[in-house]
Amino acid sequence: MAGKLYGIGLGPGDSELITLKALRILRAAPVVAYPAPDTGESFARQIAAPFLSDEQKEIPIIVPMRVERFPAQKIYDQAAHAISEHLKHDRDVVVLCEGDPFFYGSFMYLYERLADEFDCEIVPGVSSMMAGAAVLGRPLAARNDVLTVIPAPLPDEDIKTQIEKSDAIAIIKVGRHFERVAKLIEDMGLTDQAGYLERISLPEQKVYPLADMPAKKAPYFSLILIYKGAEDWVETLPLPNPQV
Amino acid sequence: MAGKLYGIGLGPGDSELITLKALRILRAAPVVAYPAPDTGESFARQIAAPFLSDEQKEIPIIVPMRVERFPAQKIYDQAAHAISEHLKHDRDVVVLCEGDPFFYGSFMYLYERLADEFDCEIVPGVSSMMAGAAVLGRPLAARNDVLTVIPAPLPDEDIKTQIEKSDAIAIIKVGRHFERVAKLIEDMGLTDQAGYLERISLPEQKVYPLADMPAKKAPYFSLILIYKGAEDWVETLPLPNPQV
Repeated sequence: MAGKLYGIGLGPGDSELITLKALRILRAAPVVAYPAPDTGESFARQIAAPFLSDEQKEIPIIVPMRVERFPAQKIYDQAAHAISEHLKHDRDVVVLCEGDPFFYGSFMYLYERLADEFDCEIVPGVSSMMAGAAVLGRPLAARNDVLTVIPAPLPDEDIKTQIEKSDAIAIIKVGRHFERVAKLIEDMGLTDQAGYLERISLPEQKVYPLADMPAKKAPYFSLILIYKGAEDWVETLPLPNPQV
Repeated sequence: MAGKLYGIGLGPGDSELITLKALRILRAAPVVAYPAPDTGESFARQIAAPFLSDEQKEIPIIVPMRVERFPAQKIYDQAAHAISEHLKHDRDVVVLCEGDPFFYGSFMYLYERLADEFDCEIVPGVSSMMAGAAVLGRPLAARNDVLTVIPAPLPDEDIKTQIEKSDAIAIIKVGRHFERVAKLIEDMGLTDQAGYLERISLPEQKVYPLADMPAKKAPYFSLILIYKGAEDWVETLPLPNPQV
């Protein structure tokens, strides 16, 4: 008899966007693991903080910023080992995940290492993409619209092709690619249909019509949403005044 | 002083996948509106049922199945009018939405009619796409994968082009298009990388490797997920045994 591994989605940042199911599982877990930067706080832990208790054993998984862009194999090997020791001793382990665990989440690297051996359940969460559309006040996709999620690190030509053949577009991981991607959207004549968002649902949230974004850089947790689909009235919706 | 309009996402079906925020707003609302078929129960109301009270005024928005595929303008005009009467009398109105309100949701037709005049807040919800990946035990998208959401009613050639240029694919609204879309996926040699899901997170949930789907028709709330992205190990994950 071994413990069960849970990957729970915590939503985009506001602790109130956790689901009832995630909360129940989180509160019952003796062991809680989460990704953390080498300096500063873990974002996933911050979201879950109001619901954690002192009696829970915590396993921070330190992923240094400098290895963010290539698989940190050794770090996940070690984290999977630490987690498996608890599971083998019949203790359930909850892994905290920003957004949704399987939507571009690093939880999958623990899942890859542990799902064969241990019982595992994923609890889906609210994605920042849906939360972004809510904040922007613009439907993400409607009717038979094709919605494409495009990571900003991709080459210009790929991003352009993907935008062209889509009705609704979410560009994720904008970060240091902001200026390049904004220029590309400008060249395609789509700036007026685009909204920029960062730190969605948190007190430090920022929302701009893309044309009004004052900075040339964006944080990693940022998003550009573009609508050019079947519902023409969506394009006539006023983009919100800059919220800073 | 007028009431506030809320569009709240209830998630894919399991009442436990409601967020804390949606629950708080739902419980406080004097008026609750929801889409309903002309015969049978409202799916959105079913999800919210454990949290409704007898003191709440309910407004079912009857959308007959036969008008599902073209805009039911008059129905939404009437519903918006009924809702606006409550808002004008300083009563908040919550509109219940399956999944997420702005991810292919009909809430947008009320939003279109009411957001100009009244204060409106959207509470994002867990999408069936994320919940489907969780149930399937396969990450939806990773790293710089391009994820495309493709409505099944689109023509074959469009679906094929969209699948070709994507790393991860969610085909939604499968319903009566199941056989045609399954054939198309077969012709592209992707059947072994595809999972089929219906009524996700509900007791009547069904999950199959696409190759094992026994029926030739699917319900409207069904989904096909395909992964052919950067994380090769995902393609080697066993698709779950048929859950019926």
